[in-house]
Amino acid sequence: MQISEKITDIREIRSQLKEPVGFVPTMGYLHEGHLALVRQAREENESVVVSIFVNPTQFGPREDFRNYPRDTERDLAMLEPLTDVVLLPSPEEIYPEDFDTWVLPGDITERLEGAARPGHFRGVATVVIKLFNIVRPTRAYFGQKDAQQLAVVKKIAADLDMNLQIIACPTLREPDGLAMSSRNSLLTKEQRQEAAVLYRSLARAQELWTRGEKNAGTIRLEMTELIEREPSADISYISIAHPETLKEMLHRVKPPALVSLAVKFGRTRLIDNIVLE
Amino acid sequence: MQISEKITDIREIRSQLKEPVGFVPTMGYLHEGHLALVRQAREENESVVVSIFVNPTQFGPREDFRNYPRDTERDLAMLEPLTDVVLLPSPEEIYPEDFDTWVLPGDITERLEGAARPGHFRGVATVVIKLFNIVRPTRAYFGQKDAQQLAVVKKIAADLDMNLQIIACPTLREPDGLAMSSRNSLLTKEQRQEAAVLYRSLARAQELWTRGEKNAGTIRLEMTELIEREPSADISYISIAHPETLKEMLHRVKPPALVSLAVKFGRTRLIDNIVLE
Repeated sequence: MQISEKITDIREIRSQLKEPVGFVPTMGYLHEGHLALVRQAREENESVVVSIFVNPTQFGPREDFRNYPRDTERDLAMLEPLTDVVLLPSPEEIYPEDFDTWVLPGDITERLEGAARPGHFRGVATVVIKLFNIVRPTRAYFGQKDAQQLAVVKKIAADLDMNLQIIACPTLREPDGLAMSSRNSLLTKEQRQEAAVLYRSLARAQELWTRGEKNAGTIRLEMTELIEREPSADISYISIAHPETLKEMLHRVKPPALVSLAVKFGRTRLIDNIVLE
Repeated sequence: MQISEKITDIREIRSQLKEPVGFVPTMGYLHEGHLALVRQAREENESVVVSIFVNPTQFGPREDFRNYPRDTERDLAMLEPLTDVVLLPSPEEIYPEDFDTWVLPGDITERLEGAARPGHFRGVATVVIKLFNIVRPTRAYFGQKDAQQLAVVKKIAADLDMNLQIIACPTLREPDGLAMSSRNSLLTKEQRQEAAVLYRSLARAQELWTRGEKNAGTIRLEMTELIEREPSADISYISIAHPETLKEMLHRVKPPALVSLAVKFGRTRLIDNIVLE
């Protein structure tokens, strides 16, 4: 496994990789969810590149950039059996002092995470396009857990004519249903127990839908009531929307429908989603 | 010479071109200035791709998009001896109905043309990144005449880690010094004669600089007075600035200094520049 901190080095290493190349961009502090992406990249490509970069431009000024969990040594040990190249750039390597060009996705970022986190998807879009240009992958792998991020990445790659495939991978869950996330490590023991309500509320939505409930308002209300029973849960949003445009379904649910939510437990904000087919 | 209107076709054709590939993006209505770019691309590369696309997103709502001169048949005849592939996409091919992602250059676009034409460089940057992603050239050729465009393209290519070289080519001029431009065809006979003052004013700046004049205000003033003698000339700006950052030199001229100007003759707006070394 080669480890590269410089863009010029990665270009050199990249040019010698066997095609096709699978790429998994991450912010590190890896868990089984990331490894599932890397394993899928391994199965579908001759070469696998993983980046570990906690991207400062996708965090708001009051968000947890400094606090975001990091453990590079452990990450590298986990990647070793599966990965050909790890890209480990510094913030200064990706954003030199005079950096001043942004990739701006449009309407799709004005809802959900984009509404709650102004500038977040500008940072995501910019770093993703930069990493794609550096790595030039055949396929790039993203988790379905970050559903809006996935929709944004697909949109910007299509709109800017990036020549690669975006592959969506299913969300991995803990035994109680909590979606795997690096941020779970920031929860207290009590918050961690309460956080299982996210998946329970999504499972409830699925159950209602399967039973024939088509009223988006009814489904949202049942989810809200379930989550509000947990003392420290603070709902940011509960949404039922089209999975690509993210346009909210205000009344009737029309499949496929992305049911997504963001809930804060103390200072830690968690997201999760399912798709009703 | 192959002519391609579809992105999927150009990708297919591109994959069979011999490396290195030189690319000249144009808005058509070609003149000797464009052909000089194409000739240089021909000399420096195994394959040459030219695009003809009048990019709607770089024109303001009150600008001359509809009025912009077009003559594709003549363009193709001029390119035939020099070019392997001409990319001739429709606006709908480049901007499908749901297109909604923009490349936004920063501070560098707030001056000169960017200040006079809000949104212009957002359109330029977006189409250039799209064309680069479609054509994947080794080198791309731009005229020094559009000095700020050149600076913007260099900046976005560097900031977004595009893996190609941006080559600047000198401005070609008519016998009286007027910089070649497709927009010259829109001038009346009187305006065309008056327009020669642009180059005379730039030559005057060069002369003053060579003689030891270091006061930017003095140089700007002499240029202004010269241009104002022409009855229909309407100055948009006269600037002495750093060629890369475009930061204005308010007092002392420090080489290299880009002397650039925009002047309207009736409804036609012309630009030109020289660099003081």
